Amino acid sequence: MNKITIAVIGCGTIANSAHIPAYMANEDAEIKYFCDIVKDRADDAVAKYECGQAIEDYNQILNDPEVDAVSICTPNDVHASIAIDCLRAGKHVLCEKPAARTYAEALEMQKVQHETGKTLNIGVVNRYNESVNRIRKMIQNGDLGELYHVYASFRSHRSIPGLGGAFTTKAIAGGGALIDWGVHFLDVVMYCTGDPKPKTVSGQAYCKLGKDMENYTFLKMWAGPPKYDGTYDVDDFVTALVRTEGPTISLNGAWAQNIGAEEMFIDFLGDKGGIRLKYGADFTFYTTEDGALIETTPKFNLGSMFQNEIDGFIRCIQTGEKQPSHIDTVILSSQIIQAIYDSSDQGAEVSLQPVAQNSL
Amino acid sequence: MNKITIAVIGCGTIANSAHIPAYMANEDAEIKYFCDIVKDRADDAVAKYECGQAIEDYNQILNDPEVDAVSICTPNDVHASIAIDCLRAGKHVLCEKPAARTYAEALEMQKVQHETGKTLNIGVVNRYNESVNRIRKMIQNGDLGELYHVYASFRSHRSIPGLGGAFTTKAIAGGGALIDWGVHFLDVVMYCTGDPKPKTVSGQAYCKLGKDMENYTFLKMWAGPPKYDGTYDVDDFVTALVRTEGPTISLNGAWAQNIGAEEMFIDFLGDKGGIRLKYGADFTFYTTEDGALIETTPKFNLGSMFQNEIDGFIRCIQTGEKQPSHIDTVILSSQIIQAIYDSSDQGAEVSLQPVAQNSL
Amino acid sequence: MNKITIAVIGCGTIANSAHIPAYMANEDAEIKYFCDIVKDRADDAVAKYECGQAIEDYNQILNDPEVDAVSICTPNDVHASIAIDCLRAGKHVLCEKPAARTYAEALEMQKVQHETGKTLNIGVVNRYNESVNRIRKMIQNGDLGELYHVYASFRSHRSIPGLGGAFTTKAIAGGGALIDWGVHFLDVVMYCTGDPKPKTVSGQAYCKLGKDMENYTFLKMWAGPPKYDGTYDVDDFVTALVRTEGPTISLNGAWAQNIGAEEMFIDFLGDKGGIRLKYGADFTFYTTEDGALIETTPKFNLGSMFQNEIDGFIRCIQTGEKQPSHIDTVILSSQIIQAIYDSSDQGAEVSLQPVAQNSL
Amino acid sequence: MNKITIAVIGCGTIANSAHIPAYMANEDAEIKYFCDIVKDRADDAVAKYECGQAIEDYNQILNDPEVDAVSICTPNDVHASIAIDCLRAGKHVLCEKPAARTYAEALEMQKVQHETGKTLNIGVVNRYNESVNRIRKMIQNGDLGELYHVYASFRSHRSIPGLGGAFTTKAIAGGGALIDWGVHFLDVVMYCTGDPKPKTVSGQAYCKLGKDMENYTFLKMWAGPPKYDGTYDVDDFVTALVRTEGPTISLNGAWAQNIGAEEMFIDFLGDKGGIRLKYGADFTFYTTEDGALIETTPKFNLGSMFQNEIDGFIRCIQTGEKQPSHIDTVILSSQIIQAIYDSSDQGAEVSLQPVAQNSL
Repeated sequence: MNKITIAVIGCGTIANSAHIPAYMANEDAEIKYFCDIVKDRADDAVAKYECGQAIEDYNQILNDPEVDAVSICTPNDVHASIAIDCLRAGKHVLCEKPAARTYAEALEMQKVQHETGKTLNIGVVNRYNESVNRIRKMIQNGDLGELYHVYASFRSHRSIPGLGGAFTTKAIAGGGALIDWGVHFLDVVMYCTGDPKPKTVSGQAYCKLGKDMENYTFLKMWAGPPKYDGTYDVDDFVTALVRTEGPTISLNGAWAQNIGAEEMFIDFLGDKGGIRLKYGADFTFYTTEDGALIETTPKFNLGSMFQNEIDGFIRCIQTGEKQPSHIDTVILSSQIIQAIYDSSDQGAEVSLQPVAQNSL
Repeated sequence: MNKITIAVIGCGTIANSAHIPAYMANEDAEIKYFCDIVKDRADDAVAKYECGQAIEDYNQILNDPEVDAVSICTPNDVHASIAIDCLRAGKHVLCEKPAARTYAEALEMQKVQHETGKTLNIGVVNRYNESVNRIRKMIQNGDLGELYHVYASFRSHRSIPGLGGAFTTKAIAGGGALIDWGVHFLDVVMYCTGDPKPKTVSGQAYCKLGKDMENYTFLKMWAGPPKYDGTYDVDDFVTALVRTEGPTISLNGAWAQNIGAEEMFIDFLGDKGGIRLKYGADFTFYTTEDGALIETTPKFNLGSMFQNEIDGFIRCIQTGEKQPSHIDTVILSSQIIQAIYDSSDQGAEVSLQPVAQNSL
Repeated sequence: MNKITIAVIGCGTIANSAHIPAYMANEDAEIKYFCDIVKDRADDAVAKYECGQAIEDYNQILNDPEVDAVSICTPNDVHASIAIDCLRAGKHVLCEKPAARTYAEALEMQKVQHETGKTLNIGVVNRYNESVNRIRKMIQNGDLGELYHVYASFRSHRSIPGLGGAFTTKAIAGGGALIDWGVHFLDVVMYCTGDPKPKTVSGQAYCKLGKDMENYTFLKMWAGPPKYDGTYDVDDFVTALVRTEGPTISLNGAWAQNIGAEEMFIDFLGDKGGIRLKYGADFTFYTTEDGALIETTPKFNLGSMFQNEIDGFIRCIQTGEKQPSHIDTVILSSQIIQAIYDSSDQGAEVSLQPVAQNSL
Repeated sequence: MNKITIAVIGCGTIANSAHIPAYMANEDAEIKYFCDIVKDRADDAVAKYECGQAIEDYNQILNDPEVDAVSICTPNDVHASIAIDCLRAGKHVLCEKPAARTYAEALEMQKVQHETGKTLNIGVVNRYNESVNRIRKMIQNGDLGELYHVYASFRSHRSIPGLGGAFTTKAIAGGGALIDWGVHFLDVVMYCTGDPKPKTVSGQAYCKLGKDMENYTFLKMWAGPPKYDGTYDVDDFVTALVRTEGPTISLNGAWAQNIGAEEMFIDFLGDKGGIRLKYGADFTFYTTEDGALIETTPKFNLGSMFQNEIDGFIRCIQTGEKQPSHIDTVILSSQIIQAIYDSSDQGAEVSLQPVAQNSL
């Protein structure tokens, strides 16, 4: 079989730490282009991985019929436009999360995917995590009984990424802790609970600890170092309550907060059993048996989520199969995130239910 | 000075574990009556404490001019009526929390207190807790900077009290985990943050783990043993999001849940510092200094909240001073609790702001 | 069947919190005497439990043929002499832990028990704990494979009992943290691991935090309040390493230390599985299965160890059965404790193995 | 100033993760040789770092007068011989920890350093850790009062490195968990407590969980993958008790154990204060003040220990200064480790005190 020819658009942190190494390790994939508007980053990738060609303008990719597929690892503001351009140019697309800055953009991406029929997967990489998949099966099997509530906590002491850069500029990223981390947590919730439709969303997002950039104290920084002359206008704390057709969902999230406990977990509460998933790691299952309360924590090799994601993307292209990271699967969480931001702006709950038809 | 003559109405768990021993230890107080509709309980108290007189009907107290003050330790359903009767009969009243089953009842109690001018304190005993008072002062002093969010977690694995009895019967208790535990947590939040007026309340309450009473697994039970032929129709899990004129408040609470971690704490999030109060115990203060993140946990002798509460009540009677547990101080939390239950019934957020005037 | 007639000698904290209530709840037992050299304490017990007779001199018990059995709840210094007197007077004896201040005293007690044939149980109450018994069975069943090491940690931040009183006076108590707490931990270890004979013992005991009594900071105190004019000359920290015919045992123990973590647990390390027993509570079993690491924590109702202990003692008397708390079962741990103190005095390891016979 | 010319001998995990990147980042250092008996590893380094020359035989380094200094990153068995050869050839040496497999080898290395006067630093990298240095100063300042005991816990669930390879072959590594991890923990203890001379050492080392290599379950492996046809004859668990002229030291260490808690810390117990150092991270200081117990945890940027170590080595060469990682500073911990293994072999405590002189 011919190798799938790949172009990587955006050669920053996530490309180098995840996408590119995974393509390099996939025997069916071959990277032809490293594209970045900062040419040095593209050049560095060519040097480091000893393959491909460094370019600045992704139109060159659109026009090259040899390219089968692209990974979009750019800031969020151009996810939608590049993905749409690529799909229309006949390329398969794997686009980093969040799909887009807004729900409207995500819907547009979905529409073009449906029109073109090309693959459009989103980087909801937890769907390739063994813990997450075991939990999903347990819920489907009824091991938890009726699932009535899920609490997602993504609270870190000091983890603002790239202070002053693309991550913390609303016009580019679309948001902060909620859209960057919350998107993963909500995705796990929706994936495991069977995509229940949201009905009401109330939330509040705060831009606090990073705002006074000079005085933001931290020990290390992802996608750093800080750009103190940049912009910081996104949420570093968010809280929300979501009613769905299934369980209610509450969440508290912080890129940074003046509380030292790192609480990165999702609690699934059922009337027969419950599960706490430690994000990115193992989980504990709580149940009862013969009058005793039982806690069980299996720890297993989680493998590499990113490798699984890339391998899955390549298989999509080869076989046409639909992966759990298909754009269709992230529309609801995109809608919820949008609604949290909207609710925060309005200071009131947002209803997502269709207006009742007049019965006349 | 003459001793203050006390009647204790309701001789169950809270009377025996808190009120009566504290009166016994206060040199200015003397218990004249132990009243309980279950006469045996009143008799037991007389025998145990070797003082007072056992009675069944609290009207005898109303009619005895020697009685200065009463402690109401009954189930919640008769808090309001007994408190009002006592106030109108010229007695000072210390009423256990929650003030009442509903916001309407609480308002009625407040009204009668204002009319009669007699003391009406509510058993919001954390206001007599040294940790809570230190936190309140730190917030007032600005040690936390701007306080933007408070998260209250009162989640226990298996702590339903008196399954099948007054605690779990809505008609009597008014509710479950929220009204029984949440009332304490919300009270601490309101007390420490300066009683910010609530604006919107969205919440959902669930009656799940105790519903199948026979199969509710537990290791020990407060106010037990279970009455398996009784009623269980109250919330054992609750989640809510409250916007106020000050910080937003989110909460998750469980008398029982299929998650084993006991998470009983309140997080106060400020932009300069933060505090985690471990409920009933010490707290940790998080701040920054010279580029370092600093966590400090002072552990001190908390004294007895209940003794302080009773001593404060006696002083109110003697001096006319207003204690922080005055009925006026719990009206806002009563309103919030009511709104959470209302929101849960309606499946939508409740607005507590005055309706905008029509401008014509 | 006639009731067993009991005398309680020593009416302090452990008598009131454990022995007496358990006798009161046992239908086959009846307390005839409360004996204490501080007459008030005996009087208080008579008043509180509404039975028995208060006496000061235990000889009265020895001379009363109606008394079947005694509970010895005195300070450690008179355990041996009273127990021996009682046995020789034909009484069955339940003696609080430690059996005695020294190994020599314990051996003497055992000798007299063997001579008289009367029951002599020691208050090693963990042998009546459900968690401990489950662990013992799992080890016997081979669930842990070969057990090679046990680590016992009984380290508390601030828990010196009765500062300045009997607990902290070496002439009375025989020692401090090691003899008071360590005796329980070593007893659990020996009981669960099949009483392996000790071969070498190296240990060091320190008298540090309580020595400057006035400046010892604490939040609460068992068997308090402090007697600042009393004596403090016992160990508040101890460390030891013991080789046995079975697993090695290491331990660190502190009644008080300048480390805030409360670490009260015993780790049983086997080559197939391991167990951490949280002292007085549940345990976690660690094993492997199909390439995964599995942790399981069952939580069950532990019942009342003290009730089980007293009920067991009554059954011994009625049926002649030998309980796991028989004096024979605590001789090895008594020997180890003695050897730790001896090693500490000598600053060197003590060998407990018989000197090799000269083969000539 | 001319650059210092470096040769790296041994191009495995520690060279690539620590030494080489730190040399690359030091402006005064230049790597001329990458030496490895597996030529591919040397070639890979040349390719990766784009400098230097790949060689197999370190004699080439000895004979090249341009080489100023070497880093020895080989398995432990050739530490001593290579270091001695290099010193005698006039090179400065930074040798990875442990200095050697045995105390005798370490003494020989020290002797040659003294003879040649060339720098011989050992990779006790924690001496370049900010937390460790702060603790050392606090102890020197008397903040802990009299330091009487130190407990070192280096216990991991599943962390055997390079199963079946050099790390787990006694003839090569000299030992397992104790010599590989314990050397770091003991070094921190000795460094912070002022190098108290050891007096007695009792210890026991076990080779258990890795012995049945095929069935050793793990989630990830440093210096892996396993070589199932290799050797596993080293300790994966060790316990010891050490008396010194200063505090006693107890330790429990496990590369692997059937207990899931990761407990990597050192507790320093003083009579005025105490410190728990979380290994490789921050520490908590426990003290008392005005009747309260105070815990303080400062979290600061630890910097890169390895960079500091390499920078310090370069400065040694430039200025002749003596670094805290000088071979002289690790002799006592080397002696203790040797004594633990000896004690384990003998099943009895080892005395390290000079035999008392006969006084005639």
